[in-house]
Amino acid sequence: MNGNRFGRLFQVTTFGESHGEAMGCTISGCPAGLELSAEDIQKDLDRRKPGQSMITTSRGEPDAVSIKSGIQDGYTTGTPIGLVIQNKDARSGKYEPFITAPRPSHGDFTYSAKFGTRNWGGGGRSSARETVNWVAAGAIAKKLLEREGIELKAHVNQIGDVEAPEVSFEEMLEHSEENDVRCAHPETADEMQDLIAEYQEEGDSIGGSIYFEAQGVPVGLGAPRFDSLSARLGQAMMAVPAATAFEFGLGTEAAEWTGKERNDDWEFDDEGTPVPVENDHGGIQGGISSGEPIYGEVTLHAPTSIPKTQQTADWETGELKEEKVIGRHDPVLPPRGVPVVEAMLALTLVDFMLLSGRLNPDRVDNQPGKYDTDYHPSNPRNE
Amino acid sequence: MNGNRFGRLFQVTTFGESHGEAMGCTISGCPAGLELSAEDIQKDLDRRKPGQSMITTSRGEPDAVSIKSGIQDGYTTGTPIGLVIQNKDARSGKYEPFITAPRPSHGDFTYSAKFGTRNWGGGGRSSARETVNWVAAGAIAKKLLEREGIELKAHVNQIGDVEAPEVSFEEMLEHSEENDVRCAHPETADEMQDLIAEYQEEGDSIGGSIYFEAQGVPVGLGAPRFDSLSARLGQAMMAVPAATAFEFGLGTEAAEWTGKERNDDWEFDDEGTPVPVENDHGGIQGGISSGEPIYGEVTLHAPTSIPKTQQTADWETGELKEEKVIGRHDPVLPPRGVPVVEAMLALTLVDFMLLSGRLNPDRVDNQPGKYDTDYHPSNPRNE
Amino acid sequence: MNGNRFGRLFQVTTFGESHGEAMGCTISGCPAGLELSAEDIQKDLDRRKPGQSMITTSRGEPDAVSIKSGIQDGYTTGTPIGLVIQNKDARSGKYEPFITAPRPSHGDFTYSAKFGTRNWGGGGRSSARETVNWVAAGAIAKKLLEREGIELKAHVNQIGDVEAPEVSFEEMLEHSEENDVRCAHPETADEMQDLIAEYQEEGDSIGGSIYFEAQGVPVGLGAPRFDSLSARLGQAMMAVPAATAFEFGLGTEAAEWTGKERNDDWEFDDEGTPVPVENDHGGIQGGISSGEPIYGEVTLHAPTSIPKTQQTADWETGELKEEKVIGRHDPVLPPRGVPVVEAMLALTLVDFMLLSGRLNPDRVDNQPGKYDTDYHPSNPRNE
Amino acid sequence: MNGNRFGRLFQVTTFGESHGEAMGCTISGCPAGLELSAEDIQKDLDRRKPGQSMITTSRGEPDAVSIKSGIQDGYTTGTPIGLVIQNKDARSGKYEPFITAPRPSHGDFTYSAKFGTRNWGGGGRSSARETVNWVAAGAIAKKLLEREGIELKAHVNQIGDVEAPEVSFEEMLEHSEENDVRCAHPETADEMQDLIAEYQEEGDSIGGSIYFEAQGVPVGLGAPRFDSLSARLGQAMMAVPAATAFEFGLGTEAAEWTGKERNDDWEFDDEGTPVPVENDHGGIQGGISSGEPIYGEVTLHAPTSIPKTQQTADWETGELKEEKVIGRHDPVLPPRGVPVVEAMLALTLVDFMLLSGRLNPDRVDNQPGKYDTDYHPSNPRNE
Repeated sequence: MNGNRFGRLFQVTTFGESHGEAMGCTISGCPAGLELSAEDIQKDLDRRKPGQSMITTSRGEPDAVSIKSGIQDGYTTGTPIGLVIQNKDARSGKYEPFITAPRPSHGDFTYSAKFGTRNWGGGGRSSARETVNWVAAGAIAKKLLEREGIELKAHVNQIGDVEAPEVSFEEMLEHSEENDVRCAHPETADEMQDLIAEYQEEGDSIGGSIYFEAQGVPVGLGAPRFDSLSARLGQAMMAVPAATAFEFGLGTEAAEWTGKERNDDWEFDDEGTPVPVENDHGGIQGGISSGEPIYGEVTLHAPTSIPKTQQTADWETGELKEEKVIGRHDPVLPPRGVPVVEAMLALTLVDFMLLSGRLNPDRVDNQPGKYDTDYHPSNPRNE
Repeated sequence: MNGNRFGRLFQVTTFGESHGEAMGCTISGCPAGLELSAEDIQKDLDRRKPGQSMITTSRGEPDAVSIKSGIQDGYTTGTPIGLVIQNKDARSGKYEPFITAPRPSHGDFTYSAKFGTRNWGGGGRSSARETVNWVAAGAIAKKLLEREGIELKAHVNQIGDVEAPEVSFEEMLEHSEENDVRCAHPETADEMQDLIAEYQEEGDSIGGSIYFEAQGVPVGLGAPRFDSLSARLGQAMMAVPAATAFEFGLGTEAAEWTGKERNDDWEFDDEGTPVPVENDHGGIQGGISSGEPIYGEVTLHAPTSIPKTQQTADWETGELKEEKVIGRHDPVLPPRGVPVVEAMLALTLVDFMLLSGRLNPDRVDNQPGKYDTDYHPSNPRNE
Repeated sequence: MNGNRFGRLFQVTTFGESHGEAMGCTISGCPAGLELSAEDIQKDLDRRKPGQSMITTSRGEPDAVSIKSGIQDGYTTGTPIGLVIQNKDARSGKYEPFITAPRPSHGDFTYSAKFGTRNWGGGGRSSARETVNWVAAGAIAKKLLEREGIELKAHVNQIGDVEAPEVSFEEMLEHSEENDVRCAHPETADEMQDLIAEYQEEGDSIGGSIYFEAQGVPVGLGAPRFDSLSARLGQAMMAVPAATAFEFGLGTEAAEWTGKERNDDWEFDDEGTPVPVENDHGGIQGGISSGEPIYGEVTLHAPTSIPKTQQTADWETGELKEEKVIGRHDPVLPPRGVPVVEAMLALTLVDFMLLSGRLNPDRVDNQPGKYDTDYHPSNPRNE
Repeated sequence: MNGNRFGRLFQVTTFGESHGEAMGCTISGCPAGLELSAEDIQKDLDRRKPGQSMITTSRGEPDAVSIKSGIQDGYTTGTPIGLVIQNKDARSGKYEPFITAPRPSHGDFTYSAKFGTRNWGGGGRSSARETVNWVAAGAIAKKLLEREGIELKAHVNQIGDVEAPEVSFEEMLEHSEENDVRCAHPETADEMQDLIAEYQEEGDSIGGSIYFEAQGVPVGLGAPRFDSLSARLGQAMMAVPAATAFEFGLGTEAAEWTGKERNDDWEFDDEGTPVPVENDHGGIQGGISSGEPIYGEVTLHAPTSIPKTQQTADWETGELKEEKVIGRHDPVLPPRGVPVVEAMLALTLVDFMLLSGRLNPDRVDNQPGKYDTDYHPSNPRNE
């Protein structure tokens, strides 16, 4: 209810503010027996972290994760995994002008109106910094999914009016991490980079979008109606900071397609299972996964914190004033949003894997009632 | 988990299949003291019901709602409201060819693969008929919202490549129910009607989209992060049958706007409260309502049941076959989808009104601990 | 939140008031493929229904259940099961004196204070009549558990100061349904019967308690800490109308046992699995089932509706008055409470069977991804 | 689902094992504007902490709490409060004999059977050490309740066969923290102390029980049926480690009382509100608080870790063996259980205060939509 929990069987509960002492999250419902180390998580945190390149904020956060519980001898125990990530480089001073004079299109005003107060340093709880928790939890979800043969990837397919051509899943895997923009089409990545530099120079920012895809998703994930796979992905992706649109399959284009055009005929695969001839349906039929790749897109608006003069209204003094936001900010969100979108996709899918009974909530080996010490290679008995 | 529940404090739990005996839902969490009659609900059901016009299925369902509990002398009691709607005109025979040979892009295959079985008559649980429950529950939510000064409306703003120009909220209220298409722009409505007739004639169907808007929403609805107003609207709207995209504010267009362009400066209203100069942010900032109108759009793909020959694969016989879907179906979904989108908007908002403490979960008069008999005008003491 | 929902993966959502038009519930999360008929449910409803004997209220309710959805050709489909039970014999007139003058120790005052109103006929939503829904849902849970080798039974082990000696599970199965009191020890049943008759004659009522036991529960049900099997049973049983105490294992007696006395040593069973030598722990260790029988006790206070003169305070007139409650009421609750306690035990266990992955949420055959028509013996293809 | 979350609007999510790096919890749903410091929490942690006296384990844990988020200038912000408590004095070596040979009546076997593994040091996740999180969260709940005029207290009313006479709420407040046993009746406390010393000397342990009471609870808390105040208290208290019975009001004694004896007549208070003449109903009627004090009792069995020789079965070697549990353990649980029971009572009540609308989920001042900086006395504007 408080907005800091995601998932039903695989639950993430987060805490932390941008300029607070630490960020952290608790992962509940991760089955026992998954090999897991801080490095598994760090890998994704490093892709999200600030200061990676010229097009990300210069805030210097190592974002080093510490696992506080839920692991025994390198394997998960089925009990809650507590993660803590210290904040190191918070400089709140620059936010003082905005304590009672909200930044345009930020959460400053809405948080203060809702709660009568807010943590104002660096955007506090409303800062995208909070997604460090999502990425940490998502890394664990990814590991579980990989065990089940599910792979997923995202890349930046649009910045401003520069759009990438369609790329294959393999191209995404190969190219999207090669450039600072995280676009899997190298030439387009260059164009995007130039465009971003342009806006950055003039003290402005620009929007964009992220394409995501999951392969190997089994048939049968998603519950009918309110908890359809598309509905839960809708929630997951619209929670991404700055998201203004979520599409799957044909997305908004579907408005112009006829039934005959969009419908995917059935044929048989080699094993005699019905499979769709095409995948205009985006891997989801009747709200439930069809076995085809699940793909879609998330639009992120331009960062609102820009070093241009804008007008604000100070509710304490009753005066209008002109202010610039001079903290350290990203000129564009999708490049750092890629691991965030992947995390939300992974968290949504792993939850449905548990809900459908394909992953056993108690243990990854799916053998209820077997007690053993194999998960404890380093326990005294095994030495 | 089973997909038939929506909401956290204002909860709707549904049951029923397209060709089953009855549809029904239980509304939990409606505060006591709301004047409510079957007519209040019927009004919206009539807008969703089949057989209204040439562009809706000819299935003859009166969709008469019966209130089984939760009302005393015309007022809600704060306890669960049970609603039942009988199914009258089900003809399952036409669906026999598809029992083991799934219709293209329908839920036939995914339901059978998930559950090993399915109610196959008329699409069973996956049929859009199930939204009769949503609209019934939504009507109650709307009544509560109206009490609090919140008004909402939707209309059809696109069918195929015919798009309506921007209309005001007042135009939506005035014109959207005047024509069969439910488009608030009369000339466009005519065009849409012609386009639909064309596709209908050639045995095809077409997609479209619905624009929605809510006015009078107070500042402060929505929780930070995963339960942001946009995330919960994302889930609500992506649950609408055939939804492939959800947008709010600038939606997909936001990719091309700069921060400077999209940011809304602050000024003061007459009471000295900061208000945004414009509403490019779509009424939501930092995931929380800003007090400005909330608006957005939902894309619905073309109906998949079309009387054209399509290929299917019979998993029992192992044979491919050509089939036409010859039940009674809509050639286009948005016109009947308008009350459904309104219902989901209302259910989402009323839930947040309760979660934010603006509506008292126990009673609409917000006076905890006062017992009286005023809600019972017809009780023996008041005669 | 509204109190009408029980369970997490196997969810029951209820509606209905004692003198309303109908009672009903929706079961969400029942796996597909379970053979189920109205008779399966009716069997247990008949054990709970009023008018069974001299020691139950004379209200004449057939309590005939109607299944509205979720069944295809005699098997569950994995989608919500809607049940409705009509109320037939409601005579509200006798409750008029209590509209604004609450009956002693009833929910009349608390409901009115909470909601500002209430359904006053026959106790409305607070009436034990509502447990008809629990028993209906519980009957489905029992069928699922039986498939998994779990059997459960309850019987009345105390009425007033008459206590039954310890009986075996087999005796419970054999004798508890033989007498009106539902005590598995025939001689004690006679004594209880006499005692109840005595109180009934003098216009009073008496308390008692119910013993329950489940056999065949596998090791591993229950989650650590807040969702331990004992905590969830505590909630389930304390929700039973009139419950004032819940005990499992040694219950309150455990206060006087030493660790050495209560601890159960370990030995091996024939298959080399560690098993406790005794079962003083009541089948639950560390909040998780140990594989031993789970047993415990629920105390129910005497019915509050008695035809003796009692003092009430009319909040409308401001006057104290003497009233007798002259509706039709039970002189003792445990006999009809036996199926209710069994239902709550079954609902709690089946939920944990799903949560632990031992029962597949999608289908009872535990074969994800197999689509077939075998669950539809009467579908046209199989004729 | 994972057992580490309590509450619905006021939610506590915990992590940590007895011998892990740290314990921690996240409190979601605490309204903004509550003055809160680490000291407020520490106070209760010190009452629960080990090594307080001769009758508690000698493990040396300072249990110092660190607040990581959710506080601005000494006031809560309405966003999640993250707490971390380091573990300092863990000595796992003594638990090695029990890795594959479970301690009698502990969670060793059930955890390993459920998850296939477990954190075996000091009982891991199943250790009562985990309640340090509950007490921390409960301290915040208590502060909120105090603001609303609700006071609560628990004391030890039975150890073995030594029972305390009935004491008043005032006596509990005055005396229960004066002695190591936490019994509000000083003479009985001495007897209890002697009894415990006796058992401790002979290497055994003993059970006992805790009485709790809450005063100032308003009328109307608790939802009908499954979420009645008694049902939710039942869950809360049966989650307390070693709890085998929960009673409220007359508890198990109610079996022997008649309706006439137990029913509480109504009279008027000075303001013309109906109030019960007595409180045999324990402050709850129809599952909802009546305004009278809520009281009850929790039985805790004897600690299972005792330095006596007991038999265990090693599942790895297949051999039976005799072992003593030689860690540092409490000879009796109720004295340290007092703050735990208080915490669970507070968490249950504060949740219902929010659910009933008596406490505003967003802010303690109940003024939705007012933004101000008063909660930030130390912000730069207020200096």
